Amino acid sequence: VDPVAEIEAAFVAYSDGRVAVPPVGEMLFDDPPGEIHIKYGHIRGADDAVVKIASGFPNNAGMGLATGSGLILVMSQKTGCLKAILLDEGYLTDIRTAAAGAVAARYFAPKNVSAIGVIGSGVQARLQVKILDPDIECKTLIVWSRTPGNVDRYAFDMRKLGYNVTVASGPQEVAERSQLIITTTPSFSPLIEANWVKLGSHITAMGSDTAEKQELHPGVLAAADLVVVDSLAQAASRGEVSRAIEAGAISLSSVVELGHAIMDPAKRRTTDKQITVADLTGVAAQDIAIAAAVLRSLPNAAAHCT
Amino acid sequence: VDPVAEIEAAFVAYSDGRVAVPPVGEMLFDDPPGEIHIKYGHIRGADDAVVKIASGFPNNAGMGLATGSGLILVMSQKTGCLKAILLDEGYLTDIRTAAAGAVAARYFAPKNVSAIGVIGSGVQARLQVKILDPDIECKTLIVWSRTPGNVDRYAFDMRKLGYNVTVASGPQEVAERSQLIITTTPSFSPLIEANWVKLGSHITAMGSDTAEKQELHPGVLAAADLVVVDSLAQAASRGEVSRAIEAGAISLSSVVELGHAIMDPAKRRTTDKQITVADLTGVAAQDIAIAAAVLRSLPNAAAHCT
Repeated sequence: VDPVAEIEAAFVAYSDGRVAVPPVGEMLFDDPPGEIHIKYGHIRGADDAVVKIASGFPNNAGMGLATGSGLILVMSQKTGCLKAILLDEGYLTDIRTAAAGAVAARYFAPKNVSAIGVIGSGVQARLQVKILDPDIECKTLIVWSRTPGNVDRYAFDMRKLGYNVTVASGPQEVAERSQLIITTTPSFSPLIEANWVKLGSHITAMGSDTAEKQELHPGVLAAADLVVVDSLAQAASRGEVSRAIEAGAISLSSVVELGHAIMDPAKRRTTDKQITVADLTGVAAQDIAIAAAVLRSLPNAAAHCT
Repeated sequence: VDPVAEIEAAFVAYSDGRVAVPPVGEMLFDDPPGEIHIKYGHIRGADDAVVKIASGFPNNAGMGLATGSGLILVMSQKTGCLKAILLDEGYLTDIRTAAAGAVAARYFAPKNVSAIGVIGSGVQARLQVKILDPDIECKTLIVWSRTPGNVDRYAFDMRKLGYNVTVASGPQEVAERSQLIITTTPSFSPLIEANWVKLGSHITAMGSDTAEKQELHPGVLAAADLVVVDSLAQAASRGEVSRAIEAGAISLSSVVELGHAIMDPAKRRTTDKQITVADLTGVAAQDIAIAAAVLRSLPNAAAHCT
């Protein structure tokens, strides 16, 4: 399975209107606080329909349990037959999320990247870097995270993988020293300001996926020559773009959808001086694509289905 | 597991406002035609959250496959842990649907039932009869179905189980000769007329669960002394009650919810001369209750979850 290729195709199918994605279902719990999300959909005319169930229970951490978990069901679009239950506990979501960042970098990163900036030190801060196209040959990371212990562990782990890692003094240093910047935090207030971002940079903002979270100052999006999102429909109400629209910094009509940019070179970076921003909130098309790809890689896995 | 007791408790919890039931999710397919429904919910404060996935693909029959299938996931409300995947292929849905009819009969059937009338000859026409309370001691069935071959097979099968079965000439004969009438067809036009129903009868209409299907003439509901539904919210837009309201035969304010009638004897039949109608469209509370009960009956099944 080449997750980046699969996710790239998923964005094209999505922007092309070939993906049926009904509204997300959710169950919310108070005591202890927790949520279960149900995302489902299918690419019209394909073989599979996919249902993903993901849970988040923050208090699990205190019991030594993972706070998030999940599984994916794959069913036949032709008979309803249950082809597979992927008990991935959220791993495929991590992979498809990272792969989306790699797709954004493939189409929007400047030609020469001498340092990759990372804000955050969690799972995505690692995967996003590891999954980047081999043609982004940069092995230098400038990283910052609010929690010193976490960023030290991040630096240790990534150095073991062969990266040169500098722990920055703050997000400003990350922005100023990198050409490809990846933000992967659950921040509720902007971390990066417009005048820190150098000409030619690309920023992929992965962290904000709700109406409340925000990693980039609206001025960053206003200063960008190109703002791209995975889903225009979602961008209107969540992620960096929705916050920047709220602030009057940009309008949705100037924003490009990633799948359209993949199909149309005119919707991408045209010079190495441009600033580009990709704001990714995650679409069910990614779940559909990654689950279907895993199944295809196991030729006899669904042999019980007609 | 006593499914009737579990479903009775589910209706009480539902009418008591203790069941969280978000909107049903669905995926629809054209070629071949088919649908996948996702129903989910939880009883507030209970241990489990339940997601049921059910598929219907009518063309499966031509390939020798079941047209419907399904599975139920049970998760912890406390940690999100996946407790069990019940690969029941729709069996538990059949049981919880039949048990709902038994609950309705328990609270609304007249004291003396000398014949049970059955319209339809499918899975529910069998289960609904078999699951009835032992205190409805009647073993005489008057049955009619549109398809002669099916009704003959029904009579054969039920006679083997010890029932005296008469195949009626039409629905009128069923209505006129029975005191407890169960309709379980996918009919789109009324099968039973008001002047066929004798005083003291109870009718449970199981078949109609959409805005289009209909088994009872609106006059039947107008003539009834008491109309009960599993869900007032659903009855406004689907099932016999919605059709009768449309026709101006009854108003929703006169309809009683089954859970309320279980809690309050004043909301039940008060004499043996009254006609009562139970219109059941199915609620997710039933799925939650039956799945949780199955899990509880297997004490170590969820031992892997904290």
